[in-house]
Amino acid sequence: MSESPAMSEAQANIGVIGMAVMGSNLARNLASRDGNTVAIFNRSAEKTRAVTAEFPDAGFVASETIEEFAASLQKPRTAIIMVQAGRATDAVITQLTEVFEPGDIIVDGGNALFTDTIRREAAVRATGINFVGAGISGGEEGALLGPSIMPGGSAEAWETLGPILKSIAAVVDGEPCVTHVGTDGAGHFVKMIHNGIEYADMQLIAEAYDLIRRGTGKTPAEIADIFAEWNTGELESYLIEITAEVLKQVDPQTGAPLVDVILDQAGSKGTGVWTVQTALDLGIPVSGIAEAVFARSLSSKPAQRAASSALPGPDGDFVVADADAFVEDVRLALYASKVIAYSQGFDAIVAGAEQYGWDIKKGEIAKIWRGGCIIRARFLNRITEAYAEDPALVALVTAPFFVDVMASTQAAWRRVVVAAAEAGIPSPAFSSSLAYYDGLRAERLPAALVQGQRDFFGAHTYKRVDQDGTFHTLWSGDRSEIQAVDAH
Amino acid sequence: MSESPAMSEAQANIGVIGMAVMGSNLARNLASRDGNTVAIFNRSAEKTRAVTAEFPDAGFVASETIEEFAASLQKPRTAIIMVQAGRATDAVITQLTEVFEPGDIIVDGGNALFTDTIRREAAVRATGINFVGAGISGGEEGALLGPSIMPGGSAEAWETLGPILKSIAAVVDGEPCVTHVGTDGAGHFVKMIHNGIEYADMQLIAEAYDLIRRGTGKTPAEIADIFAEWNTGELESYLIEITAEVLKQVDPQTGAPLVDVILDQAGSKGTGVWTVQTALDLGIPVSGIAEAVFARSLSSKPAQRAASSALPGPDGDFVVADADAFVEDVRLALYASKVIAYSQGFDAIVAGAEQYGWDIKKGEIAKIWRGGCIIRARFLNRITEAYAEDPALVALVTAPFFVDVMASTQAAWRRVVVAAAEAGIPSPAFSSSLAYYDGLRAERLPAALVQGQRDFFGAHTYKRVDQDGTFHTLWSGDRSEIQAVDAH
Repeated sequence: MSESPAMSEAQANIGVIGMAVMGSNLARNLASRDGNTVAIFNRSAEKTRAVTAEFPDAGFVASETIEEFAASLQKPRTAIIMVQAGRATDAVITQLTEVFEPGDIIVDGGNALFTDTIRREAAVRATGINFVGAGISGGEEGALLGPSIMPGGSAEAWETLGPILKSIAAVVDGEPCVTHVGTDGAGHFVKMIHNGIEYADMQLIAEAYDLIRRGTGKTPAEIADIFAEWNTGELESYLIEITAEVLKQVDPQTGAPLVDVILDQAGSKGTGVWTVQTALDLGIPVSGIAEAVFARSLSSKPAQRAASSALPGPDGDFVVADADAFVEDVRLALYASKVIAYSQGFDAIVAGAEQYGWDIKKGEIAKIWRGGCIIRARFLNRITEAYAEDPALVALVTAPFFVDVMASTQAAWRRVVVAAAEAGIPSPAFSSSLAYYDGLRAERLPAALVQGQRDFFGAHTYKRVDQDGTFHTLWSGDRSEIQAVDAH
Repeated sequence: MSESPAMSEAQANIGVIGMAVMGSNLARNLASRDGNTVAIFNRSAEKTRAVTAEFPDAGFVASETIEEFAASLQKPRTAIIMVQAGRATDAVITQLTEVFEPGDIIVDGGNALFTDTIRREAAVRATGINFVGAGISGGEEGALLGPSIMPGGSAEAWETLGPILKSIAAVVDGEPCVTHVGTDGAGHFVKMIHNGIEYADMQLIAEAYDLIRRGTGKTPAEIADIFAEWNTGELESYLIEITAEVLKQVDPQTGAPLVDVILDQAGSKGTGVWTVQTALDLGIPVSGIAEAVFARSLSSKPAQRAASSALPGPDGDFVVADADAFVEDVRLALYASKVIAYSQGFDAIVAGAEQYGWDIKKGEIAKIWRGGCIIRARFLNRITEAYAEDPALVALVTAPFFVDVMASTQAAWRRVVVAAAEAGIPSPAFSSSLAYYDGLRAERLPAALVQGQRDFFGAHTYKRVDQDGTFHTLWSGDRSEIQAVDAH
């Protein structure tokens, strides 16, 4: 190890552990900012050597043991872990707690489940070391050029870490896309919801593409132009932008549109599932996200799909009468559904903050999602404004700006859902968002009947619209109503 | 305790612990069958005394301590625990393992989470005692008169327990509604899915009622007649039957239909949430069940609903042109959506069996759901037949009988989803089931675009339709395609 420059002096102000693409890109990003000297470490030293050799200008302080790595960092030592979530992360945390000292800061920049982060933060804090779970979005490119960063952890850790993270985050309107989200697992929680919204957004875009293609017969290249145009308006966003790029891509091998050559079975990496499972625990209906997750799992069942291909559908081909009008309807449906996906996502953030005792500023979250991350979009400014106007906003969709959006989109949205149902084109996210919207609006819901059923078969009791208390009808008796002492 | 008759001799062949309504009803059911002598025990002895006094003819052998209770049971001792899921159950299991002996049988008849049952079964088995998690459906009345019972646990335990459970289960066509579902947690798993399907079924019925009411202006009493009539046909089921009862109920206080007096905020008790969370882990799209769970949670957000009541919706009132035709369309939509809910539920059972190593006979499950339980329905015979014809059926909806159902319902189903979207009436379960169905049928899904997006922003790679391997397009390079060594 005598070749390591880090043996004798603490010269780095920040360290990165894990030299896979995300980690090395983040290290390069850090190294490119004035004032940073970056220590790097990887379980296999080969990788560290390769990264050092490939980017000589980064001035990395490379170590081949964790002890060297710790020794190469100025105090308070600050290290960002960029390894696989789960056991690999736990292993590195254990290593670091052995060589770090009270006041040092361990940052987990991976996609950890927020409950793991809560557990780890408590365990590490007991040693006097700070632990920060930080969601980092933006993929490989974001890590290199400026991600959106969602750190949790203590205010003390944020004091040291804040300036470093601000130096590498994406910048929008002069503001870095990073904020102290809340204590312990708050950062990873919000990152999880971000990813859930990303699932919904991608599924909505996919449905929009499918409807336009099957309804108008336009080619992927033509639809790419439509998305490119949409990207100049209120839908302007990274996902719309890259959809245009993907759709215009021609497969070099066959000359066909690449999208027609890609196997139509979508994978997932867990955060979408986590979002829905967590929202279920919190009692928050995140139907748009759930339908997106389900759409991916359905797509990945080739045997079921093959056996189902002859299931009866509508007669005749689906061709819309006015292609331009239909495309515009789809655009408006996408906008409306997207508002619902965000409204549901922010509901989950509010519920999570309440459940776990986090002081999360919703407007700040929308602000740091404006750049660097996958769901970055122009309309996030509107969300920030909505929460600035009314921090206690009970549902995002009820903010005046979004009420106006709904007024100008809901008729088109309905036409699109109708067209999809009539044509037999699956649009689970469009139709589910609309059903949720109509559920919110409904003066009365048939949930009253459900309560009646539950009281009938399980004596679950019900409440009345006209008086306090809990009631039960003696269904198998004389059907009189009694006041229940407690619900059971 | 000298008044207890159980002190000196073991006279009971079965015991029940927990004398709340479900437990005492199950004990009474057991006591009513020839050959059974039933030991009873409750944490507070008062309750035991009350039950003994209220039902003198049951011949209960009452105990006031767990030791007495054990002593009152013939060997192998068999005790059914009917207490609250969670800690209360764990506490009773601990007590019983202290007084029971190897070869004895502890049955948890509560609504335990199946992973808890797996854990408990392993722990109890280590003591040589058998542990059986048994789902019991049918509510209070079912417990008393004959429930549907879904026991897991070992084959050895089933030998002793089977005859006892068969003696108290509901009977349909001469067959008791109980079968050995599989080992350890299999019984509680299948009971959980049963409850999930119940959620979907109730939500679909609620949507059907709401659409008919708002579309035709019929009164609850008139709609009660419609459901009563539906109950004579292919939709014949307990839930349709009790829906008619609930809808015709008049509130004694106000003279209004009870359903209009019940607060429209539906509660839930966990198994619906568990079903969806588990299905997400297993990668199974249970969208009908998820939408039902979400509909209940949406209904229980009064502040959001109040703030949303002025959100823009369709102009004008919704009145269907031909009420009878619309009602028939809704009936067919309900039938089709119900098939989807069961198809998704059985998918989850298949995936669970594979994941946890259970040998579950799908046809047997449908058979034991025909009586006693909340989702009992005529069409379960068709499910049993479908799995008898093809035990490896890849999706229930692809069985010939159900393909015919879809052929005769799908057009009406679409009309109902269209009407709901146009009228602004929330029908999340109807529309989500249809979208799922159309997804299954689709020759190509826009999941290909999602894969393209994922490859673009995260280098997640994709597969091709025309060759094996995993590929990545160099999106930020020359956009050529490379073969990926492994997905990351």
